[in-house]
This record gives sequence, C-alpha cells and structure tokens, in this order.
Amino acid sequence: MSSKMASCIFCKIIKGEIPCFKLFESEKTLAFLDVNPLSRGHALVIPKFHGEKLADIPDEDLSEILPVAKKLIKATGAVEYNILQNNGTGAHQVVPHVHFHMIPKPNQQEGLGIGWPQQTTDMDKLKALSEEIKSKI
Amino acid sequence: MSSKMASCIFCKIIKGEIPCFKLFESEKTLAFLDVNPLSRGHALVIPKFHGEKLADIPDEDLSEILPVAKKLIKATGAVEYNILQNNGTGAHQVVPHVHFHMIPKPNQQEGLGIGWPQQTTDMDKLKALSEEIKSKI
Repeated sequence: MSSKMASCIFCKIIKGEIPCFKLFESEKTLAFLDVNPLSRGHALVIPKFHGEKLADIPDEDLSEILPVAKKLIKATGAVEYNILQNNGTGAHQVVPHVHFHMIPKPNQQEGLGIGWPQQTTDMDKLKALSEEIKSKI
Repeated sequence: MSSKMASCIFCKIIKGEIPCFKLFESEKTLAFLDVNPLSRGHALVIPKFHGEKLADIPDEDLSEILPVAKKLIKATGAVEYNILQNNGTGAHQVVPHVHFHMIPKPNQQEGLGIGWPQQTTDMDKLKALSEEIKSKI
C-alpha cells in the first residue's frame, strides 16, 4: 500500500475505518452521501481503486460509476441534476481520490453553481487543434 | 425515429448532417471539440443513443464514456480538468442530448467556474435520508 492510500480519507471510508452514509457498495464501487451537501440527495460515487485523477483509474474500475449514478438519480427522485468530477486543486478537487458528485438541482439557490467563461470561437484554430488531438489518441 | 431525435443537433452531428471537429468515434460513442470552448481542448463525449438526461441512457450505451474521456485527457495533455454532465435547463443543460464535457482547467480565468453553496451538515437528517435512498435502490 502506498503512503498516499494509507492517508486517503476515501480509502479509509472504503475500509470501514471512517463511517459514511453508505448508499451502494459493490466489489469496485462505493456510493455515499456527501456530508457537506449542496442540495438534498447530494451523493458521491467513487471507484475503490485509489487514484487521484480520472486518467489514473483503469477502465474496468470505471465501468460501474455511471450506472451507479443513475441508481442514485432514480432513488433520490432528482429531476434536474449535475454530474461533476474535479481533477486537481485548481479545478476544485478537495479529496485526492477520484469521486463523482451527483448533485440534485432543485432550484437556482441550491445545488451546483456554474460559471461559463466562454471563449471566442475560432474555427481555424479548432480545426488545427482537432487534428493535433486526433494524432495523439 | 421520434420527432425529438429528428430535430436534435447532436443526432444530426452523429449522422453527419452537421459537421463537427471529430476526435473519436465508435459504434456507441462520439467525441468532438466544443465549438464554444471554455479552454483549449474543451471537448464533448456523447452516447449515440438519444436521451435527454443521464437516467434515460441504457447502461451499455454509457460504458465507453469515461474511457473515451480519459483518451481525450491524455491526448490534450490536460493536467487539471473537470468532467461535467448537466441535466435539465435549470442545471445549465443547453442541448437536450446527454453530453459529458471534458474541460481543461489551465488557470483560474479559463475553464469551468464552480459555485459551491454548501449547506449546513445535519447528521440526523443525512442518516434518515440515506435510509430513504437505500430503500429505493
């Protein structure tokens, strides 16, 4: 076990060393309520595999994430909602273990707030960028 | 075909009736650059299956979404980034066909802005809520 895993609060929750309001558990996935919710039903879905960012998690450890998020959406009765996964402290990540937020949006005051600093569209730059990205996939 | 599918801009992109800066395509999944980017490399990953919200998409049509997002993260070289999927106009959804944003966060000015109106933690309410949600899963 790495020292990062040993000190990870979500790894401790997975191992049962720290309690949580568990909603769902399987071999690879855990879901529980966020104890600092933005709205009623705000929950987290996490892979048990420890990794800080999405790109660190093997595909097979991600396969249940969205199906479990769907279960939570249906069980909470959320009609409008955001799925958010932050990577890096500059991108609002607080706990360095991949977690997907399922945040019901019942009204404009509660739930996730979104800022959308849209940039100018430059079709030539986008075309060049798409070729560059495709060449690296 | 439903009339909603016939008029859906993303279904038209999937069918090739509207052009896009395509990055990846498979039987069930399409990825392309957002033409109104929040940052360099802002891309969308969508299931080809038409559904407005996440809860409307069959699990098997979601299985590639996160692995494809990982491909984009690696190909763009994004270090910090947000994965966001909005459901409902009140939750900032504009196109009513499920789409996952992969938004690089290179600095505080560019990329996704996040508002976090955290509510007071009430452990008794959370416990009751977790029991209620679990009973519906």
